[in-house]
Amino acid sequence: MNGAESLVRTLHGAGVELCFANPGTSEMQFVDALDRTNLLRCVLGLFEGVVTGAADGYARMAGKPAVTLLHLAPGLANAGANMHNARKARTPMLNLVGDHAVRHLAYEAPLTGDVAGAAGPFSDWVRTATHAATIAQDAADGLAAAMSKPGQVATLIAPADIGWDEGGVVAAPVAPTPPRAPDPTTVDAAAAALGPDTLILAGGAVLEDTAALELLAGIAAKTGAALMAPTSNRRMERGLGRANLPKIPYPVDMALPLLARFRRAILIEAQAPVAFFAYPDRPSLLLPEGCGVIQLADFDQDGPAAVAALAETCGARAVVPPDAPKPEAPSAGPISLDKLAAAITAALPEGAIVIEEGNTAARDVSPLVPGAAPSSWLSITGGAIGIGPPLALGAAIACPDRPVVALQADGSAMYTIQALWTQARECTNVTTIIFANRGYEILKMELAKVGANPGPSALAMLEMTGPEVDFVSLARGMGVPGRRVECAAELFRTLRAAVDTPGPYLIEAAL
Amino acid sequence: MNGAESLVRTLHGAGVELCFANPGTSEMQFVDALDRTNLLRCVLGLFEGVVTGAADGYARMAGKPAVTLLHLAPGLANAGANMHNARKARTPMLNLVGDHAVRHLAYEAPLTGDVAGAAGPFSDWVRTATHAATIAQDAADGLAAAMSKPGQVATLIAPADIGWDEGGVVAAPVAPTPPRAPDPTTVDAAAAALGPDTLILAGGAVLEDTAALELLAGIAAKTGAALMAPTSNRRMERGLGRANLPKIPYPVDMALPLLARFRRAILIEAQAPVAFFAYPDRPSLLLPEGCGVIQLADFDQDGPAAVAALAETCGARAVVPPDAPKPEAPSAGPISLDKLAAAITAALPEGAIVIEEGNTAARDVSPLVPGAAPSSWLSITGGAIGIGPPLALGAAIACPDRPVVALQADGSAMYTIQALWTQARECTNVTTIIFANRGYEILKMELAKVGANPGPSALAMLEMTGPEVDFVSLARGMGVPGRRVECAAELFRTLRAAVDTPGPYLIEAAL
Repeated sequence: MNGAESLVRTLHGAGVELCFANPGTSEMQFVDALDRTNLLRCVLGLFEGVVTGAADGYARMAGKPAVTLLHLAPGLANAGANMHNARKARTPMLNLVGDHAVRHLAYEAPLTGDVAGAAGPFSDWVRTATHAATIAQDAADGLAAAMSKPGQVATLIAPADIGWDEGGVVAAPVAPTPPRAPDPTTVDAAAAALGPDTLILAGGAVLEDTAALELLAGIAAKTGAALMAPTSNRRMERGLGRANLPKIPYPVDMALPLLARFRRAILIEAQAPVAFFAYPDRPSLLLPEGCGVIQLADFDQDGPAAVAALAETCGARAVVPPDAPKPEAPSAGPISLDKLAAAITAALPEGAIVIEEGNTAARDVSPLVPGAAPSSWLSITGGAIGIGPPLALGAAIACPDRPVVALQADGSAMYTIQALWTQARECTNVTTIIFANRGYEILKMELAKVGANPGPSALAMLEMTGPEVDFVSLARGMGVPGRRVECAAELFRTLRAAVDTPGPYLIEAAL
Repeated sequence: MNGAESLVRTLHGAGVELCFANPGTSEMQFVDALDRTNLLRCVLGLFEGVVTGAADGYARMAGKPAVTLLHLAPGLANAGANMHNARKARTPMLNLVGDHAVRHLAYEAPLTGDVAGAAGPFSDWVRTATHAATIAQDAADGLAAAMSKPGQVATLIAPADIGWDEGGVVAAPVAPTPPRAPDPTTVDAAAAALGPDTLILAGGAVLEDTAALELLAGIAAKTGAALMAPTSNRRMERGLGRANLPKIPYPVDMALPLLARFRRAILIEAQAPVAFFAYPDRPSLLLPEGCGVIQLADFDQDGPAAVAALAETCGARAVVPPDAPKPEAPSAGPISLDKLAAAITAALPEGAIVIEEGNTAARDVSPLVPGAAPSSWLSITGGAIGIGPPLALGAAIACPDRPVVALQADGSAMYTIQALWTQARECTNVTTIIFANRGYEILKMELAKVGANPGPSALAMLEMTGPEVDFVSLARGMGVPGRRVECAAELFRTLRAAVDTPGPYLIEAAL
């Protein structure tokens, strides 16, 4: 058995079912091993950012990593932006990156590059395999690192000869580090700090756990503490019948007044909120000065257990929130932002997975979510735009029976638009709604914040006009049907029909 | 004057005319400075790989760098693959990358990342600006590093506050390091080594210099030495009336027998040839064992001057090669590889710029080039696929009066297909010919070389079928007209018409 085959068998033995891949010559022995063993399903992406973004979406919904297969330093660089998002989401991910055969590295071949150097900034764990006999153990270790709490991005570099050499040895699964239990003293301190001036900021696994959310609602009801979630989250269980935590708004000028009243903050798998960006005359930290902070559960701890302990200590019980009004389908007319939000939230079927890369245009969606069907919401976590189309792909592959609805800013969509092709190839039920405002609207706001009054040269950098992108034509070119809609009622009807029909679809919503 | 404005004024003062940009919030002060000063033309790319690939194409044709404007670590990662290609081409490039304001870096904001770490593997020169008063000097230094011989990729990291702080000071241009003169002793040794068993391998600036090429032809005629060029080159002046150097073939099994007879090799701005990849039972070095090597000019030396000195020493004069037969336009019928080559070489107008990312399907083009119109050929240099569409864009912007013809593999095209939008926006005369063989043909060859007999899972990783990509629809979606052609004669006619018509066009050639 060669090194490549021992690696594939080890991953399969540890529960890995999938490989998202964009291989090149230095990975052909892995393609061969995947082919011969037939143990993992292989999904091809036509660009590496698609591969890692899809792996992220898969892991967020499956709760365990897929493996990615990438090609040398430039391929890893292309994968880096969505590795960055996965790291910030604390999604478990194991990347397998080929390199030249060890003897070939002495020479300056065209593709020779610093693979480990390129991996470092976007990985929590990096190792380079050195022998066919140990590469399987390396993979088992990498997988354990990825699945340890908090989830990590692990990258294993595999020189070609380590894969094709004989002497591979299948390795037993390595147990990931489990979450640390909450600390009783901190639980007591947090319970004592509860009150109307207290913010409970909960992220990570808490937002994925409807029981924990109901306990949080009970704590809030009993003590008057306020509940919030971070701006960007790996996955939030939301909708009708669930305790829907409002998110801290992205704009600093909206977040600051909202947080100004708090005297104490209890953090559960969350950090003290930080502004997305710095501005000349705004603070970086969003909590008011003098606000006391208690880290009830850090990222490597068990957030839901901390919530349970806090509830028990303060004597709170689970509260199922009252029914919120179901959003009404919008009437006919141009697609204003509030009608856009209404169309989406009214059309969502139960069990939908919603991908949030809507940026500016999506802001009006959140207030309507409590009345929408119960659903899972996955957002861009690291601010590296271009996560939406692949995240939707990966989530759909993890949950083939659940429709995926991707709320997609047009500017961001263009970074990884190639994901549509794989959405079609894998017959995923992804409906992408392109928020076609023809530009980087968010940057126009940001430009104003540095005090600039943009002229034509600046505006040309922020607008996607001359020509306008025809997303329906792009989608058709990659095998995804679609249409452009300019009426809110039509958007609602088209979305409902697309969600009910197998296979991907793209709706370009004219804003 | 703030730091950003001092930087823009410094770049302009040093001769920079252009900025290829994909900015984000942390670069808004630069967008503002570019807008207010109106000194540089700004060209927007919808993905960072487009930005750096276009900067490479511009610099290869303009002979001086454009500046790129990129956004934080993930944006830099997206730019990395084409920075890698530019490094291997030794193209001068100056990247300006924003970072968070220094005070904001203390916090874990979503986009916080290791920008310098991400820059390192893909840059020859990296610096982080520290004060508004010195950022302009940093930029002048970076520009000099980029333009020094050999050309380099320089990356300047600019925290947001360094750009928006007042106190910027415009810096005077810094003179780049000129090429070192050839060493007379080495010239004598090279002259003594000339003979029928000698290979002269010339790259870099030699291939851009028709006079140097004619002197090389004279040396070959006088001494019987053979002339070759590396497989991948920044720019080759080729076609009718020029000394056309054959390139070392990409496949190891073609290169080895071609080089087996040489006893001596003289290298001029070239290294001893190395296989693109290692294989289980093939050598990494392509020259035969025992072949003596003389480095007549290294990459930091003046190759054309070395050629002139060698010619003088051995008493050779310039030789203008005899006219080669002009390729004939192909007859009607399916587009075989030889008809593809004939259609392209017959249709090329004088002064065309040809972009070579045709990979497997382009191999038959080279033998016909000596009869084609005089033209400049730019190839993928670092093996990081996805350079073609942006390289064409940048070359067209550098030379608005010269038509650009891009020979484009379909698999590679998908990595940076967003470049078509900027081709349309900037009204560039780029005609892209997609070699639509629906897959990564090159990888099927490579898979065979590791001894594999691919089954359905492996083939699915190497084929772009189910669905097939409709490149005409993709192009139309980004404002570029086009059509699919299935007949060789029609390909010739369509290409001629497209080249003669202003603006971009895409031809999907069915192979």
